Amino acid sequence: MQFERKLQLATDLYQMSMGNVYVEDSKQDEMAVFDVFIRNNPFSGGYTVAAGLEQVIEYIEGLAFEEADVQLLKKNHPEFSDKFIAYLRNFKFTGELYALPEGTIFFPFEPIIRVKAPLVQAQLVETTILSIINHQTLIATKASRIVEEARGGAVMEFGLRRAHGTEAGYFGARAAVIGGCVGTSVVETEAMLDRPSMGTMSHSFILSYDTELEAFEKFVKYNPQNATLLVDTYNTLEQGVPNAIKVFKKALAEGGITGKYGIRIDSGDLAYLTAEARKLLDEAGLQDAAICASSDLDEYLIKDLKLQGAKIDSWGIGTKLITAYDCPALGGVYKLAEIDGKPKLKVSNDPWKITNPGYKKIYRIYGKSNNMALADLMTLESETIDESQPLTIFHPMHTWKKRTITDYYVKELLEPVFVDGKCVYEKPSIREIHDRLVQEKQTLWPAFKRMVNPHVYHVDLSQPLWDMKQQLLSEAE
Amino acid sequence: MQFERKLQLATDLYQMSMGNVYVEDSKQDEMAVFDVFIRNNPFSGGYTVAAGLEQVIEYIEGLAFEEADVQLLKKNHPEFSDKFIAYLRNFKFTGELYALPEGTIFFPFEPIIRVKAPLVQAQLVETTILSIINHQTLIATKASRIVEEARGGAVMEFGLRRAHGTEAGYFGARAAVIGGCVGTSVVETEAMLDRPSMGTMSHSFILSYDTELEAFEKFVKYNPQNATLLVDTYNTLEQGVPNAIKVFKKALAEGGITGKYGIRIDSGDLAYLTAEARKLLDEAGLQDAAICASSDLDEYLIKDLKLQGAKIDSWGIGTKLITAYDCPALGGVYKLAEIDGKPKLKVSNDPWKITNPGYKKIYRIYGKSNNMALADLMTLESETIDESQPLTIFHPMHTWKKRTITDYYVKELLEPVFVDGKCVYEKPSIREIHDRLVQEKQTLWPAFKRMVNPHVYHVDLSQPLWDMKQQLLSEAE
Repeated sequence: MQFERKLQLATDLYQMSMGNVYVEDSKQDEMAVFDVFIRNNPFSGGYTVAAGLEQVIEYIEGLAFEEADVQLLKKNHPEFSDKFIAYLRNFKFTGELYALPEGTIFFPFEPIIRVKAPLVQAQLVETTILSIINHQTLIATKASRIVEEARGGAVMEFGLRRAHGTEAGYFGARAAVIGGCVGTSVVETEAMLDRPSMGTMSHSFILSYDTELEAFEKFVKYNPQNATLLVDTYNTLEQGVPNAIKVFKKALAEGGITGKYGIRIDSGDLAYLTAEARKLLDEAGLQDAAICASSDLDEYLIKDLKLQGAKIDSWGIGTKLITAYDCPALGGVYKLAEIDGKPKLKVSNDPWKITNPGYKKIYRIYGKSNNMALADLMTLESETIDESQPLTIFHPMHTWKKRTITDYYVKELLEPVFVDGKCVYEKPSIREIHDRLVQEKQTLWPAFKRMVNPHVYHVDLSQPLWDMKQQLLSEAE
Repeated sequence: MQFERKLQLATDLYQMSMGNVYVEDSKQDEMAVFDVFIRNNPFSGGYTVAAGLEQVIEYIEGLAFEEADVQLLKKNHPEFSDKFIAYLRNFKFTGELYALPEGTIFFPFEPIIRVKAPLVQAQLVETTILSIINHQTLIATKASRIVEEARGGAVMEFGLRRAHGTEAGYFGARAAVIGGCVGTSVVETEAMLDRPSMGTMSHSFILSYDTELEAFEKFVKYNPQNATLLVDTYNTLEQGVPNAIKVFKKALAEGGITGKYGIRIDSGDLAYLTAEARKLLDEAGLQDAAICASSDLDEYLIKDLKLQGAKIDSWGIGTKLITAYDCPALGGVYKLAEIDGKPKLKVSNDPWKITNPGYKKIYRIYGKSNNMALADLMTLESETIDESQPLTIFHPMHTWKKRTITDYYVKELLEPVFVDGKCVYEKPSIREIHDRLVQEKQTLWPAFKRMVNPHVYHVDLSQPLWDMKQQLLSEAE
């Protein structure tokens, strides 16, 4: 069964209204540079994880308007000129797009995607790019935070039923795996993520049998490769765990368990119940039996449960991950930085809302001795850094805050994805994307990964970029 | 361009794992009844708005497994038996589904969808139904709250860029219109919602011209039917509004405005700025010019702005609506109520988490004199209510709280959607759905519509249903 979407129309009307004016006004081919960036890390965190680029690529590669679209737009929008309608009929993205590879860690104010394209094209792709990137980046970051607090325990994504529709569950699961989840319950992801989906059983399974014991026996019989039993339907410690132990011991004795086995607890005080269940399992000689916990978990609760002695091997995370419950929107924006060769900025009373002008790139500066990330530096595209020379960087607001760095090397973060409308990017596998994140997190000091009140990573402007910004600001006054 | 989804796989793996056991254990055709219900109104509100049924219908009508799906599942899940794989190959929904029509107001604990189907079928559809209903119901309810506080002002949905992906933006916009938004910026919805999408212009449009004045002139020239100018790029009151007035007066004098016109303010103190802008527009004789506000709005801010004298005719709502920011997940669940003719309940230490057993329906009781909703009553499907007799209802927990109602009439809320696997439901248009909500809200006392700390609407159990529940509870002890 197909579920047809028209991503070419998954945009705000104003992109088309402006496009109509640009075409009428013969401005459609003015070259525009737009930056995608965020102003804050989500969850009051210290970093953000890039995700969603693969879907942006698929969107742009397939971007074209069908005759039915054009007819509908003509009917509903008599203000669209024939010239603009003709423009849509022949629409093709011919521009350039640079981006951070998925799994890259980034910080507020630096461009994570940079689009340079004829004005109408650059404008038409804005909303779709933001919608995809804001969503997946948000969930990947949340997953990374949760995985961090699980400290080696396996984290599974179980949230589809609470996602914002099935697509949010599907791509949310993708982002969760990028962020570090070992898997997801969403069957639809198996092809995309190249791995089996995961799961246990529900309370209705237990209720559908006359007794819990019978339900457990049947489940183990037909799931010898992964026999995880949900033990909290009636009484977890007095009935559920003892029944599970009985079934496991019999099945183990008869060779009826060929893979992993264990229990899942989905309610009650997980610290107490898992610690007691662990004792019962161990006393029965079932040290191999794993304990999975679920029930409204997030990184804060995981940390507290661990501190309180919970014995949990794997975590099933639903609502709080798939909706990014405590910060359900990433505020990624798409701002004009240059048009027709002229750098542009958006002024604002709030100094943090003033945009950075120009055709820019980002360097990450690493210490040579430890390969740790020291700071990021935004520069104009034309600038280069001579790694043999000391590098002085300064705070973009409090410019007296200066720092001279020696013994460093730099890495450019933005990579070419589309050049002259052609995709030049080799899409990494989901495993490669996740590996990149693991590697990136290793270069980040723990201070930036702290769950609460993390240290602020420095993203500075080069002198030429800073000068350009000051000049445009004084011109705007 | 199509974006292919496989909704048949948009489910949790455990539905299939359990299905495999059921098929192996020859339980697949046991008739099961499941209820979809919520335990709390979202946003600490007093009511919830049903939405998403149309997409559930489309999902179930198209539900079948393709050979490629089956092959992938066989490869990834060697535990699935040949019998189960064959079952999937021939899968077809043959069951029954009753539901509240979209736009119906409902309350915690009453079934909003009731599925009666062979066990495996009923289980396989769980996750997808929940994902769709939880999402759209959440957004429709949020929209209804926002529209309520706008008190006649037009509310427009502008949130696609912050939605959880493009599909959440698409169906979220649908739900927002059900909830009362006059329109959405999402172009893709034009066919589905049978109305043009809406929008104004972005700051980049202004920046792409040398001056704000030129940008305004060009925009009005090519948008005479709806000339809304964004006036806050530079200085709202000293430059933006005066420039807009200049352009409007000239265009009006020359017949260059043929429809609505006005300004949009997207930053700053909206109470002060809109009040001052209104004065400037009125002094210029432009009483017709509408003022649109946007910028992180929700029902709370709308209420405060109105109290503080803001002059706002229409509201563009983004992030807070499309992500239901302050309560981004609806906790709809899908619980077994009967199997093989036997009523079932899930016990819990928390009395509110004990489910209601049996094959049930809901009556809404209205006062004859005023047509206001008095309470809802959950009964067994076999029960009838004699409207000529007084009706005594009681609180399902605090059973001493009794109430005898006279001069009433009742309406059954659940309507047949699928019978014997066939859709028997005539899908209403989006306008009819919204009209239903408007009508339903008129039957609801203001006490239940209060934004903060609303009165709790009564959902009671009939005596036979209450007796059934007590008996099952004592059996479970």
